[in-house]
Amino acid sequence: MERHFEADLQTVRERLLAMGGVAESMIRQSVQALVGRDESQVQAVLAHEEQMDLLCIEIDDRCFTLLALQAPLASDLRFLVGGIKINSDLERIADQAVSIALRAQGLITQPEVKPLIDIPRMATLAQDMVRQSLDAFVRRDAELARRVIEADDEVDSLRDQVFRELLVYMMADTATIPRALALILISRHLERIADHATNIAEDVIYIVRGEDVRERGDKELRKGLRIAAH
Amino acid sequence: MERHFEADLQTVRERLLAMGGVAESMIRQSVQALVGRDESQVQAVLAHEEQMDLLCIEIDDRCFTLLALQAPLASDLRFLVGGIKINSDLERIADQAVSIALRAQGLITQPEVKPLIDIPRMATLAQDMVRQSLDAFVRRDAELARRVIEADDEVDSLRDQVFRELLVYMMADTATIPRALALILISRHLERIADHATNIAEDVIYIVRGEDVRERGDKELRKGLRIAAH
Repeated sequence: MERHFEADLQTVRERLLAMGGVAESMIRQSVQALVGRDESQVQAVLAHEEQMDLLCIEIDDRCFTLLALQAPLASDLRFLVGGIKINSDLERIADQAVSIALRAQGLITQPEVKPLIDIPRMATLAQDMVRQSLDAFVRRDAELARRVIEADDEVDSLRDQVFRELLVYMMADTATIPRALALILISRHLERIADHATNIAEDVIYIVRGEDVRERGDKELRKGLRIAAH
Repeated sequence: MERHFEADLQTVRERLLAMGGVAESMIRQSVQALVGRDESQVQAVLAHEEQMDLLCIEIDDRCFTLLALQAPLASDLRFLVGGIKINSDLERIADQAVSIALRAQGLITQPEVKPLIDIPRMATLAQDMVRQSLDAFVRRDAELARRVIEADDEVDSLRDQVFRELLVYMMADTATIPRALALILISRHLERIADHATNIAEDVIYIVRGEDVRERGDKELRKGLRIAAH
């Protein structure tokens, strides 16, 4: 029984990693659609949506079933509830990638405002954060989770740079305003993806720390990290 | 023991409602800061942040403790895990209200772009959605939750209207661009608040339906609602 439960937990871990892998692909493809002006990448993102929905439902099912049947104690309980929360963050990350792809679809038929440098950089960072937050989850690595939370500042500073730069284009030539706005909104979608990765990392710290530090200290840490992440 | 557990669940319900009440106030005050050009409302929003953080930690603690000590079955399990997820959505709603307040703070020292009508309307709708999603949770009312999900379309259509209208101002007078952009971003924060209320409503449907319909049917329903909400 105990051994079976371990295998079940391992399956949850693997399914979440699979979901994270799909989410990463969707982010990459959505920004490739934009940068490479490539409609086929838009379609690739949309084609993943159904798969993500099914994975999300499957993982929720598995976690709830294990919670109900095994009534797990401290560490496994945190893992399973954390899994349910992470699952929902991953689903929302996929939603953001879809939004980016749809905006890209609108942009690739129009002239470019400017060569894109910071948006692809934001996308790479956001993908790294998603992957590392899940690695941290699987390896129960609070240190790695902390680095994910720190990386969020870099994403925010790129977001501000994208904003400032596009503002200059808009002021100089009103014809660029609608396209520049779409790019600004894409940078906000990437920011939200990074925020979801940060949420996952915060959950990881909670899951891991819950095992080996006293409740209060853990909560203070979490709170401190949250404030630092703002 | 059973009776004690019921009282504990009731406390969780009450604390979540209290948190929802604070979140609603923060949304209202943040938009009042903008519309009434009132710095004191900005400060009122910021003053609530600490309270929200403490409530969030308290509710997480209560839910995890009950899950660990009571190993509740189906319906109570769903309620408690749902409570943890709703708690995290409410915290993020508060974060959005803080972002609105800070943007308002930057705007109220500058001339108005235009009289604001749709943004306050969006704020009222978003507040209603937050309140109703929590009412649905407390009363286990799937029908009310479904209405919250439907209301999200109205918020999205106001968001598009705000966007289109401000675009016209920006094209006509480049001096308005920075302020118009800030207003567009405020409308996006309100959209995100409505999205969080929608997430809460989806969780409510899961919690309620999990009790009286078969798993599969429930999941299909959820999926259908998710797609409808896109």
